[in-house]
Amino acid sequence: MTTSREIRLKSRPAGVPTPDNFELATVNLPDPAPGEVQVRNTWMTVDPYMRGRMNDVQSYVPPFQIGEALQGGAVGEVVASNDPAFKAGDAVQSFFGWREAFNAPAAAVQTLDTHGLPPQAFLGVAGMPGLTAYVGLLKIAALKDGDVVFVSAAAGAVGQVVCQIAKLKGHTVIASAGGADKVDYLKSLGVDHVIDYKAEPDLTAALMRAAPTGIDVYFENVGGAHLEAALMAARPFGRFALCGMISQYNATDMGAGVRGLIMAVGKSLRLEGFIVSNHFDKQAEFVRDMSGWIASGQVKARETVEQGIENAPTAFLKLFKGENLGKMLVKLS
Amino acid sequence: MTTSREIRLKSRPAGVPTPDNFELATVNLPDPAPGEVQVRNTWMTVDPYMRGRMNDVQSYVPPFQIGEALQGGAVGEVVASNDPAFKAGDAVQSFFGWREAFNAPAAAVQTLDTHGLPPQAFLGVAGMPGLTAYVGLLKIAALKDGDVVFVSAAAGAVGQVVCQIAKLKGHTVIASAGGADKVDYLKSLGVDHVIDYKAEPDLTAALMRAAPTGIDVYFENVGGAHLEAALMAARPFGRFALCGMISQYNATDMGAGVRGLIMAVGKSLRLEGFIVSNHFDKQAEFVRDMSGWIASGQVKARETVEQGIENAPTAFLKLFKGENLGKMLVKLS
Repeated sequence: MTTSREIRLKSRPAGVPTPDNFELATVNLPDPAPGEVQVRNTWMTVDPYMRGRMNDVQSYVPPFQIGEALQGGAVGEVVASNDPAFKAGDAVQSFFGWREAFNAPAAAVQTLDTHGLPPQAFLGVAGMPGLTAYVGLLKIAALKDGDVVFVSAAAGAVGQVVCQIAKLKGHTVIASAGGADKVDYLKSLGVDHVIDYKAEPDLTAALMRAAPTGIDVYFENVGGAHLEAALMAARPFGRFALCGMISQYNATDMGAGVRGLIMAVGKSLRLEGFIVSNHFDKQAEFVRDMSGWIASGQVKARETVEQGIENAPTAFLKLFKGENLGKMLVKLS
Repeated sequence: MTTSREIRLKSRPAGVPTPDNFELATVNLPDPAPGEVQVRNTWMTVDPYMRGRMNDVQSYVPPFQIGEALQGGAVGEVVASNDPAFKAGDAVQSFFGWREAFNAPAAAVQTLDTHGLPPQAFLGVAGMPGLTAYVGLLKIAALKDGDVVFVSAAAGAVGQVVCQIAKLKGHTVIASAGGADKVDYLKSLGVDHVIDYKAEPDLTAALMRAAPTGIDVYFENVGGAHLEAALMAARPFGRFALCGMISQYNATDMGAGVRGLIMAVGKSLRLEGFIVSNHFDKQAEFVRDMSGWIASGQVKARETVEQGIENAPTAFLKLFKGENLGKMLVKLS
């Protein structure tokens, strides 16, 4: 018998989430039943997509339920096992984030082979955000020689990986991020042009200056003015990988709309949305490539870390204020 | 020596074109020089895309020049030839529309093999608009078994062909058009559900009623509220062929924007613009299929005809008022 603290959804956010939408609860964990393991999480992830699950609407994942613990990626260590597949001390990953510890059927957790990387890398550059970047850039946007690449939210968990994959493949990369720290970070990665969108009165004009001959690929994480700028700057046959639109996640109505979509006709643009879970067929190829790129120093990854389960809501809320540099994580033990 | 009347661009339209933007002029045509033919046009086409060429902006085709005759598709008959490739009486097609007759190098006109169809069919169902429908539906939207298809401007030159190809391939087709005549026409083609968008206060709601389980393919000719409705009604992995956005062609600013694009992320939608001239590789296959479909009665085509070169501007202006049923043509002789 042990205890675990967890974060539950207390109420559904209307617009921008607040701390009041979350509650911290303590639960008792019995010893694991036959076929179960008990895991203590060392790290958990907060990701923008979780905002959508806080609404009571059907989407590609079911909504979170009020009064229940939230869910998400986590890495941890088996502390007790009642299943022959695991033993105490095994490193594992699971979807039982937002809690310090849990019991679960052995089949619901996966052994984590870290390939020598820190385990939390599998919540970021070597995990879902990294695979998202890889699939979006190489498969959805179908990156090809000579493409000029524009990335929004470029200093975020996914954006930082997109920038680095595009650079290591020899492309000109234009990144957008908000604030001097992020601009400096992206320059340190070798990004060719960094736009501080918070300092630009006209994002389209800024992108046109950074890419005077236009862009071929746009990796979309933001929506709104960023998408409009990309439509204006796109060259014929440009491809947009629509990964997310964080500017829209807290909207309470349909908003102002995106202007300039008619550009997609005259310039034969392709805009394609994707969900990483539909592309797990690329997982093995991704792990092989990414572990090599990390080992060679071609891909680095920054993290912003909050300490303790009680600060997980704070970490999540910071995503929507742009207060994360690289992957936002919560260290649990 | 003969004379020809032609329509010139008198001034660039600001917003919706008016008759004042056009002027009728008469030119003298000498006998054709060596290597030239003289052609008398029997039919010319007016198409919405021509509006874009009236603006002084670079696009996929260069702008029309003030004081010069407009250009566009035409079919006609050789009246005199000074080149061995043609003789008087030959049926030809060319891009020298908007004029009654012209002299041109023989290489600038093409012999028209009508396959037994009326020659003006090659300005519509068997010509560029037909190929646009064919390429957009089958190649860009990648129509596949079971797809539910939504078509806007469905009673227009392109839309009527899209509806019929989708029907003959066994699909459920939902069409949008404005007014009872168009609705009746589309029903006569076997379209499953016709939305009279002018009579619907909420186009999205109307589409949801017509397609309660959603749509898979959207053939986009209109933009604006039609595109928003399609985004809302789309099923996962829906494909949108962006052929045109006639609601935007006369806009003098960026307009209101399209809301709901975030749907493209969660539903993994693909929106792809295209220009038919990039897909002439499909021409032979199109002619083979379409001539068969017309011969078997599976594809029919309606025309709206204005008489005489002096009424060509009127025909063009009617496109933007939705006053054409099927292909809008001008009969010249």
